[in-house]
Amino acid sequence: MNTELMRKLILQVAVSLDGLIEGPNGEFDWCFMDQDYGLNDFFKQIDTLFIGRKTYELMLSMGENASPGFPKFKEYIFSRTLEKVKDDAILIKDDVELKVKKIKNETGKDIWLFGGGSLTTSLMNLNLVDELWLAVHPLVLGGGKPLFTNLNKPVELKLMDIKTYSTGLVFLKYSVK
Amino acid sequence: MNTELMRKLILQVAVSLDGLIEGPNGEFDWCFMDQDYGLNDFFKQIDTLFIGRKTYELMLSMGENASPGFPKFKEYIFSRTLEKVKDDAILIKDDVELKVKKIKNETGKDIWLFGGGSLTTSLMNLNLVDELWLAVHPLVLGGGKPLFTNLNKPVELKLMDIKTYSTGLVFLKYSVK
Repeated sequence: MNTELMRKLILQVAVSLDGLIEGPNGEFDWCFMDQDYGLNDFFKQIDTLFIGRKTYELMLSMGENASPGFPKFKEYIFSRTLEKVKDDAILIKDDVELKVKKIKNETGKDIWLFGGGSLTTSLMNLNLVDELWLAVHPLVLGGGKPLFTNLNKPVELKLMDIKTYSTGLVFLKYSVK
Repeated sequence: MNTELMRKLILQVAVSLDGLIEGPNGEFDWCFMDQDYGLNDFFKQIDTLFIGRKTYELMLSMGENASPGFPKFKEYIFSRTLEKVKDDAILIKDDVELKVKKIKNETGKDIWLFGGGSLTTSLMNLNLVDELWLAVHPLVLGGGKPLFTNLNKPVELKLMDIKTYSTGLVFLKYSVK
């Protein structure tokens, strides 16, 4: 398998300086919305989203407000418990490793690992995540949901790129070694 | 009180990208030791350490290996339970807010909040920490001890400086707003 030609699976997410993706009550209102922070360039690089069950249900409940300004992406929903998902999405219930490897080998742009924490942890543990792009916000939440929980082992990274914004947001890009 | 003239209390610590200061079994062998990463400049800026009880006991058990290459600093040990500390250190058992404010108002260089997590969280909650200097290492630990646990509220930061090293270590400096 020539991994150079494979579609990359990219975890791109906003975190607090202390590595949390949500506050203690699920808050994500601390995420900066004042500018693009490279998101539109990222949108050109991807065509597919990987979404965990909880995140999917949250997005459903928010309706069109869940992903304002997003182009139409192909969506895979990962869940062991759901029996069906919305018509224009694809449910992945089992054989995650096999199916994700197959998708990554298909022709297409890169894939956004959209979240949440459980799916992210599973795919990291399966060694299927290629890059981490973290928008580090200038605050400490001090409690809430961590980016990863219970990885099988530490994962070494290679710093690819770093960009600093006047708002204090620092965008860090790493590849998984 | 002219805070501009006060000694600053600086939390300077190595973290993983996911905001952990130790692995699941207390590991900190992932911290880069190959170069200085600004530590000797930092040593010129400070003359005092604030140390929590667990960290103090760990340092005692490690003997001279606990702080290789450190100059001699004045050490304050914070503990509600200890009755005495080593001869050349000062024990702070109670009235933490009052005593820390007094120390910060004394003449001297800045103060290194050396850790650990419990002391760090207490002093953050008392709004006594002035700056966070984080040496973000290029790895995800995926489990272990977080930098902070149970802050009373989120703390907004201002990005002061950022430095990237060829090893992939990113040094981020923030002031507390």
